[in-house]
Amino acid sequence: MKTERQKMTAGEPYNQFDPELIERRVLMRKKLAVINAEPDNTKRNEGYKALIEDTGADFFVEADFKFDYGFNIHIGDHFYGNYDMTFLDTCPITIGSHCYFGPNVGLYTPVHPLDYKQRDADVELGAPITIGDSCWFGGRVTVLPGVTLGNHVVVGAGSVVTKSFGDDVVIAGNPARIIKHL
Amino acid sequence: MKTERQKMTAGEPYNQFDPELIERRVLMRKKLAVINAEPDNTKRNEGYKALIEDTGADFFVEADFKFDYGFNIHIGDHFYGNYDMTFLDTCPITIGSHCYFGPNVGLYTPVHPLDYKQRDADVELGAPITIGDSCWFGGRVTVLPGVTLGNHVVVGAGSVVTKSFGDDVVIAGNPARIIKHL
Amino acid sequence: MKTERQKMTAGEPYNQFDPELIERRVLMRKKLAVINAEPDNTKRNEGYKALIEDTGADFFVEADFKFDYGFNIHIGDHFYGNYDMTFLDTCPITIGSHCYFGPNVGLYTPVHPLDYKQRDADVELGAPITIGDSCWFGGRVTVLPGVTLGNHVVVGAGSVVTKSFGDDVVIAGNPARIIKHL
Repeated sequence: MKTERQKMTAGEPYNQFDPELIERRVLMRKKLAVINAEPDNTKRNEGYKALIEDTGADFFVEADFKFDYGFNIHIGDHFYGNYDMTFLDTCPITIGSHCYFGPNVGLYTPVHPLDYKQRDADVELGAPITIGDSCWFGGRVTVLPGVTLGNHVVVGAGSVVTKSFGDDVVIAGNPARIIKHL
Repeated sequence: MKTERQKMTAGEPYNQFDPELIERRVLMRKKLAVINAEPDNTKRNEGYKALIEDTGADFFVEADFKFDYGFNIHIGDHFYGNYDMTFLDTCPITIGSHCYFGPNVGLYTPVHPLDYKQRDADVELGAPITIGDSCWFGGRVTVLPGVTLGNHVVVGAGSVVTKSFGDDVVIAGNPARIIKHL
Repeated sequence: MKTERQKMTAGEPYNQFDPELIERRVLMRKKLAVINAEPDNTKRNEGYKALIEDTGADFFVEADFKFDYGFNIHIGDHFYGNYDMTFLDTCPITIGSHCYFGPNVGLYTPVHPLDYKQRDADVELGAPITIGDSCWFGGRVTVLPGVTLGNHVVVGAGSVVTKSFGDDVVIAGNPARIIKHL
């Protein structure tokens, strides 16, 4: 029998008021409030790493990084993230190595039903986000639930990525489309 | 004879340097700086509710919620707002019950004249924003002055809503267009 | 022979791990963490002005203003910026007089190579951003490296400005296009 955390991570309907999940969210918010106020780069990044399931060598994020749980975030080596990133990790967020994200990048895995009666009843689902190696995201990129991007993908600043793309492309716009093959 | 606050709320040209309005803005910024730093969910939300004109049962907002005045914000029951929402409430912002907003949602009621000479002379106007019941806004949704949305509207993440829409639609894009009737 | 700071400011490939640049970035982040937490408007704005190369009369920015270096930011008289602006100033950001920016405006001058092997090797470039007089940016406007805007330009909320435009136009969308001549 699955726990609510396991259902959530699998993208299945789950009870967001499950005590284990509430406790974890409260803990994350309390810790992030302290860590995000830490101006020392090394101390702040040690703080993020302690809350995130997998991080690699050369992990560096500027201030005001926010996420829901941390236990569903997996980041490879040589990651740089600029100010104000928001990762909603009800489902797994997996990022390859050598990725570079501009400020205000939002990766959102939660999904709510289109039927408002189900939403009113607090039904919540989700879908994972997977990013390959050596991707560059410009500032203010938004990625929707279920998106997979390949390796060496460049995403233009301000783009909204609503579907998956393969390797070696530049994508941009709302919704993001291929504007160049590399 | 109308006060500057009354003119502003009505969307008419007003003097933004009116002492009553300056005093209120300064008070809000001082209080929000303290409240947004409060990691305890209950205390933080009690703080927001004390500054907002109308809130209902089950009001819950994550950290870094910002608004101009609070006295022009009216929110129904069962509201959830994620991180980093910005409500510019020079004119009324009215939100129905059972609405669920993703992170970084921006509702902007202020309007400035297109004629730069009037802008340079600090003329400021505005228009209200009205959202129905049981709406779901994805992350990073922007709503412009004067927009009204009906009930059960879903707004895709990253959308910029420049005009009004009725009930039971999914809208997305920049500018937002109907992508599905529910 | 150019310093790394001089190369960076000129938009040429530079070493972002140069000790002078690291020291400046660390100093800015430490100072901004303190200044952005200052609820007193006058004190907070004196703080920003001390870090920015050029500011004019009547400079006023709301909280959570972020930038990389400050020494490449040049702002004219009568500037107002709302909450959560992010100016990435590896190259010069020049803003005329009487400009008014909504919340969450992002001006990004850094450029990374499209060739992932160069990105993996930490090659970084850039291009300046120049904004004329009496411009109004709605909330959540994104401006890309190399963009120049003329005088009296209005940019719709949520727009992504990917190329340059002349005087007296309203631009909007992603990518931003002219929607009205003034």
